[in-house]
This record gives sequence, structure tokens and C-alpha cells, in this order.
Amino acid sequence: MYEQVRELYERSGFGGRVGFGERPAIVVIDLARSWLDDSSPQGSSRLEPVLFHTIKLLEAARTNGHPVFFTTMAFAAGEVSGPYGQKMIHLSRRGSLDAGSEMVALDPRLGRRPDEPLLVKPRASAFWGTPFDSYLVGRGVDTLIITGCSTSGCVRATAEGAHNLNLRTIVVREAVGDRSPLAHEVNLTDIDLRYADVVGIEETLSYLNEGATR
Amino acid sequence: MYEQVRELYERSGFGGRVGFGERPAIVVIDLARSWLDDSSPQGSSRLEPVLFHTIKLLEAARTNGHPVFFTTMAFAAGEVSGPYGQKMIHLSRRGSLDAGSEMVALDPRLGRRPDEPLLVKPRASAFWGTPFDSYLVGRGVDTLIITGCSTSGCVRATAEGAHNLNLRTIVVREAVGDRSPLAHEVNLTDIDLRYADVVGIEETLSYLNEGATR
Amino acid sequence: MYEQVRELYERSGFGGRVGFGERPAIVVIDLARSWLDDSSPQGSSRLEPVLFHTIKLLEAARTNGHPVFFTTMAFAAGEVSGPYGQKMIHLSRRGSLDAGSEMVALDPRLGRRPDEPLLVKPRASAFWGTPFDSYLVGRGVDTLIITGCSTSGCVRATAEGAHNLNLRTIVVREAVGDRSPLAHEVNLTDIDLRYADVVGIEETLSYLNEGATR
Amino acid sequence: MYEQVRELYERSGFGGRVGFGERPAIVVIDLARSWLDDSSPQGSSRLEPVLFHTIKLLEAARTNGHPVFFTTMAFAAGEVSGPYGQKMIHLSRRGSLDAGSEMVALDPRLGRRPDEPLLVKPRASAFWGTPFDSYLVGRGVDTLIITGCSTSGCVRATAEGAHNLNLRTIVVREAVGDRSPLAHEVNLTDIDLRYADVVGIEETLSYLNEGATR
Repeated sequence: MYEQVRELYERSGFGGRVGFGERPAIVVIDLARSWLDDSSPQGSSRLEPVLFHTIKLLEAARTNGHPVFFTTMAFAAGEVSGPYGQKMIHLSRRGSLDAGSEMVALDPRLGRRPDEPLLVKPRASAFWGTPFDSYLVGRGVDTLIITGCSTSGCVRATAEGAHNLNLRTIVVREAVGDRSPLAHEVNLTDIDLRYADVVGIEETLSYLNEGATR
Repeated sequence: MYEQVRELYERSGFGGRVGFGERPAIVVIDLARSWLDDSSPQGSSRLEPVLFHTIKLLEAARTNGHPVFFTTMAFAAGEVSGPYGQKMIHLSRRGSLDAGSEMVALDPRLGRRPDEPLLVKPRASAFWGTPFDSYLVGRGVDTLIITGCSTSGCVRATAEGAHNLNLRTIVVREAVGDRSPLAHEVNLTDIDLRYADVVGIEETLSYLNEGATR
Repeated sequence: MYEQVRELYERSGFGGRVGFGERPAIVVIDLARSWLDDSSPQGSSRLEPVLFHTIKLLEAARTNGHPVFFTTMAFAAGEVSGPYGQKMIHLSRRGSLDAGSEMVALDPRLGRRPDEPLLVKPRASAFWGTPFDSYLVGRGVDTLIITGCSTSGCVRATAEGAHNLNLRTIVVREAVGDRSPLAHEVNLTDIDLRYADVVGIEETLSYLNEGATR
Repeated sequence: MYEQVRELYERSGFGGRVGFGERPAIVVIDLARSWLDDSSPQGSSRLEPVLFHTIKLLEAARTNGHPVFFTTMAFAAGEVSGPYGQKMIHLSRRGSLDAGSEMVALDPRLGRRPDEPLLVKPRASAFWGTPFDSYLVGRGVDTLIITGCSTSGCVRATAEGAHNLNLRTIVVREAVGDRSPLAHEVNLTDIDLRYADVVGIEETLSYLNEGATR
């Protein structure tokens, strides 16, 4: 039903294609237990396929020598304060996203390697309050491929941040997800119209394996 | 139909209330001809009520001495480049958002005063690539009231930016709009769950006229 | 000898006074072993008085309920890359600023309390690549008092960042230091002319104990 | 006399070389009448050679197709507020840096072309409160060559910003200057130790004409 939004926005001059560039990197957003496990108040095992498809992309990136980055969220005492904590009730709950806890650790199936940076991001976007821009610029990255969760929150905000920085921004349809399928669908369209190309996993794998020059 | 998203997200610990603080300011997002006029490819006269309600809020803010800020978007040659311009096709079109043109000038009915800063923002968020944070901090603002357009783009991105900075962020339901009513409704819910309190205009006017201490 | 710079710059309209505001906070820059201990390549026991004076300021801040923040620098594998690591040779050396090591831990005499946030900053400024601005805005801080080291690096960069954000920025003369006394003197003058009031410790203690309203 | 600082800092692991990369750009900082003309309170005709050397670099950059950027500072009513305006007294004076005035216009001898962006920066650094990072990323720039004034203010702050972003940062010795020769000398050393390679103009011209690959 959100297709009418796409039609109207495309007629208004949104939704151009940015395409893949020459030096891609992958960022995996928040695939930790706090978001993947039904035992967490904000977790959802519905995201298991997102993890599965992300792992396939990681294999292609590592095989071809492209940089890989991960994010999680974690807070120590005093770090969630003010209106931010009032809006995000779950962040203020003890135990939910405590720094150093198992809830904020990445899913071990991602097989994070020691030289793949893990950004502990304090907000939805991987760029806000972190040195992520310098990691990408220092490595000459021109294309950022985004996977993980949630489509309507951290994925969208990170896509916006990458677009703002003028990177070619790619969101892989099967490798992002949301606790709400409806919020997923709607935000994926907004992302595609405003911030990033939403691309299928097969096309992305082909690019990583054949198209990128590094 | 998007109410199911609200229910799920509230159960997950999103959607807390931040409330009004003590030192509010208003920012009016992009109420210029380029977005208000049907003659513009991205414009929509559907937004006339947004302008009307914004003017009521401005009267209350000015009467009570609260800071007022405006934004527009405008680009000179060389300022739209790379993937950003490829995604935002309408920004790359000559004439649409040219710096100094009538299309990017604020609607005169807003009655902008000379000491009310006009931010020429290069991206959706009023915070990105601008000194807006310093304007607010220098004036001791703790509450940012957002009006204007579009709900699914610049309003949402600005609400996210204000939330990130830890301001009490308020989006006035009747004073924001979108060229698509569906995108408006959906994004207003996401904003309310993640970034800002979505509040009615009567409640906001009462606060400006009675509740704020300055 | 650098007094001639002060005279010329004051004649040119630099070096105004910002004064103390109403809601101060203290940030202690990089008082960890890596900078305080002669066994570290970049450390200098010459900074012992800086630690001593900082502790006096912390006592006054805590007694009067003002927020306290600390910074350190620490890097995991993959986090120092590109030109940044080439310029800052000591950051690329294994062992010097390893995340989790004793070298990057705060001096225990600072008595950091669990609710006093510790920012692990990736660059000289406490604001760059961190959520520090949101910590200050969320607490309504209007005055940032800076102590620690080094005057010519992280202290100056943090003073610039606070000035940029439009905070009243205060650098406490006796509570900041540099491995080079000459670099200290020269940069303290630049800071006073451009970014922050350089104020003596007695005046700062009086303000914290009597002048601030919180 | 500042050479002792260099020796101590190099021994401590600062002052590495970043070198030139493959895709350079030039940014010319604040070569407008307000800083070049003795009739301006903060101006100094002493900077004439800086202009001359910058023009030589611009010729080489344009001949070889490298991006060129300019900055100036300019403020409308309401844009200089709070502690920022109190410290920078000259910015608060009417007439000194008024938006749209002749004082803030670039020196015409620079021959700025219409597609060479002019950043109106609100602070010392060309990166703070501007979209400069996106201009560089969108063009794939890996090396930023800095010229203009003042060495102890906007040049140093811009070098710090470029270094933070992980660009190869080059400050051209003869093409930067300061109203105070002593502040120039001292800050050039700090810059070379901490943020950028300070390189002679002949070496930079050779690189632009022969070494860069684009």
C-alpha cells in the first residue's frame, strides 16, 4: 500500500540511483542478543534471516578484502540521561543494554575478526557520536553496504548519515529487518527514495565478488 | 493501520514522553515556495494548513520572547555533487533550489524578523552541516518545537538530530506536513516512538503562552 | 615573550571575556598513566601538580553537585588507521594506548565515581567522535571547566570544541599542563585569546563553592 | 626557540609524516578583505605573500583538474550570540564581518570560478558547521592542501579537522600566514607535530603538476 508514496515521490524528483562504487565496505548494525533474542524486551527472533544473509555478505567481503565494521549499543551509568533516556525507555532499564553485558555482545555467528572495528554507537546512526566517518575516509571507502536492524531506526539513521557524507549507500533488502514487518516495508521505501539504494542480496554478492576493484 | 507498529514498539520500551521544558525555541522547516507551490516539481499546495498553524505558533513564541529559527535549502554551482545529487534528482535540476532564487525564499506570510536566524541547510536535518546546535546552546534552549515540512524527510531528520543532542523535542501535529498523507501518518508515528513527542497545536500554544518560564 | 602576540591580538578584537555561567561542569582530560608516567613514551611526571589541582576542583564540584566528566584515549586493533596513525606515531605502537590496558586507565587518585561518565575519545577534542555534547545539553550545562593535559593538544582542542558549541569555556591555569612548559605557555595564550577564559584555580574554586546556582 | 618543543614531541612519538596521496584538493582559508586589509581591525597587509603563493598553487590545481574550495566568514543578525560572540569581540562589531559586505568577499585576485564552492564557515575550522566533509568525500579526495590565514586560528583548526577525518593533510609553509609572525612560527610547529605535514611550496607545486594521479 505504500507504493503510492513511491510513485508520488519519484514524480517529485526523489529516488535516483546512486549505484555501487569502487571501494565498498560493509557495516553490520546491532546484530547482538539485545535485538535478536526474544528474552530481551526489544528483541525479536524474527530477525534470524537477517543474520543469515549478513553472514553470506560478510563471507564475500572478507574473501575479497573489503573492510568490515560492526556496531552495537551499550551504556554505562550516567551515559543515558535527559530526554534521550525518557524517550528510549528500554535504554534506561538496567540490564537491557548494560556495557559489558552479554546482551550487547555481537552474535558469535558473525565471526567478528579482531581487526574488524566494533563501534559502540550511542544513537541510532552509526555516525553520530562515533569516529566512523574517519574509519571510512582513512580506508578510501566510497560505497557503504548496510545490513542489520532495525530498518525503521538504526538502519535508516545510518543510511541517512552515509548519504549525508556523500557515500554511495546501499541497503541490502534481505539483510535488514525490523521487529515490525510493516515498519520494515514502509521505511525501506523511504530509505530507497531519500538516502540509499535498496538492493537485493544476489546483486550485492555479485558486486562484491566481481564488480569491486579492490 | 500503522497503529500495530505503535503497539509493538511501545511494548518493546519505545515511545516514552519527554515533555516540555523551561526554555523553548521554534524551528520552522523549509516553508519556502519550492515546497509550498504546485509550480515546483517537489512542491504541494496541500501544505497550506501547515503554514497557517506555524504562523499561530510563531505569534505565541514572539509574544512570549522565545527564540525563532527558520530553515531553507539552496545550492550554488558545485554544491550538489556525488551520490547525494544522484539520489536527490530534484536538487540537481537547475532552477529548483538555486541559491538566491525566489524558489528558496521563505513564504512572506511567516514574517521572519531580521534577528531570527535563517539556516540554509544542505541536508534533511537542520543540524547537519550547520551551526544550529550552537545557536540553541548559546541561548540556553532545552526544548525544540518543530514545524514545517516534510514529515518523512526534513522534519523527521531534524527531530532525530534534536533528540540526539538531548533536547526535549516536540513535533506539532497540525503544523507539520508531507506531500503524501500516508507518508505523513506513518512517519509521525515513527517520530513519536523514537525521537520526539508529537503534540497537538492547542497544547503547544498553551505551553508557549503559559507554561514556559522565559 | 609571547606577550606581544597577546597585545596584537587584543588590539585586533580577540580575547574577550566569557565569564562563568550558572550551571558548570568539569571535564578532566586524559589524566591516565599513559600521559602521567615517565615509563610511557609520551608520559611526563612533570604533570603531577596538574593532577593535584584537578583533585581540588573535583572536590568542590562534587560537594556542590556539579557534573563531572573524564576522558581517556584507547584504541583496539583496526581503530588507528590511515594518515591519523601515521602522524601520531605513538598511537600506532602496540602497548602505548591499548584498549583495556593499565596505561589508559585513569589515575586512581581522581576517585572517579561510577556515575561520572568516562569518554574514550578518539581524537584530541573531547567532542570529536563522542556524544559529549549530548551529555552537556541533557544536563543543562552552560559552563565547561577544563583541566588535564596536554595544553597544546587535547586541552586546546577541547576548549575549541566547547567554544564552538557556544558554552562558556574556562581553562584552569594551574590544572592544565604539557610535557613542554614552552608549548604550555604559548598555547595557553592562544586559548585565552580565541577559545576560553584562562582562569586561576582560586577564582575557580570560589565560583564552584559560592557562585554557581546549582 | 620553539625547536625544543619539536625535539621533545618527536621523542614522544609525534610528528610522523603522512605524505601526499592520490587525489588532492586545495582549500583556501579566509583570503578576504577583512583579513588582508589594514583598514580592517583584524586585517593585515602583511599577508600579501600568502595571497601570492596561494595563487600559484591555484594555477597548478586548476591546470591539473584538482578540486578547489574557498572559505570566508560572514554573519547576519542573530548569528553571533552567546559566549562565542563575547570571546570574539571583532565578530560582534557591526561592519566587520557582515554577511553580504565587501569585507567578507574573497580577494578578486584569487579568480574564484563559479563551480569552486565557497564555504561560509561559522567557526575557525572549515569543517565545523559546514558540509565540507561531504564535498571532499563526494569527490574522492584523500589529500587536503591548506593555504590562507591565520596560522594560529583557522588554518590550525582546519588542519585539525582534516586530520580528524583521516585525510592526508598538508599545510603549505609559504602560503599560510598570521598577523603575528611569532604566532605563525609556533603554531606551524604544533601543526606539523600534531595534525598536518608542513611542506614547502616548491615541493607542493611539483606534486600537483607531476605526482597526483588525477
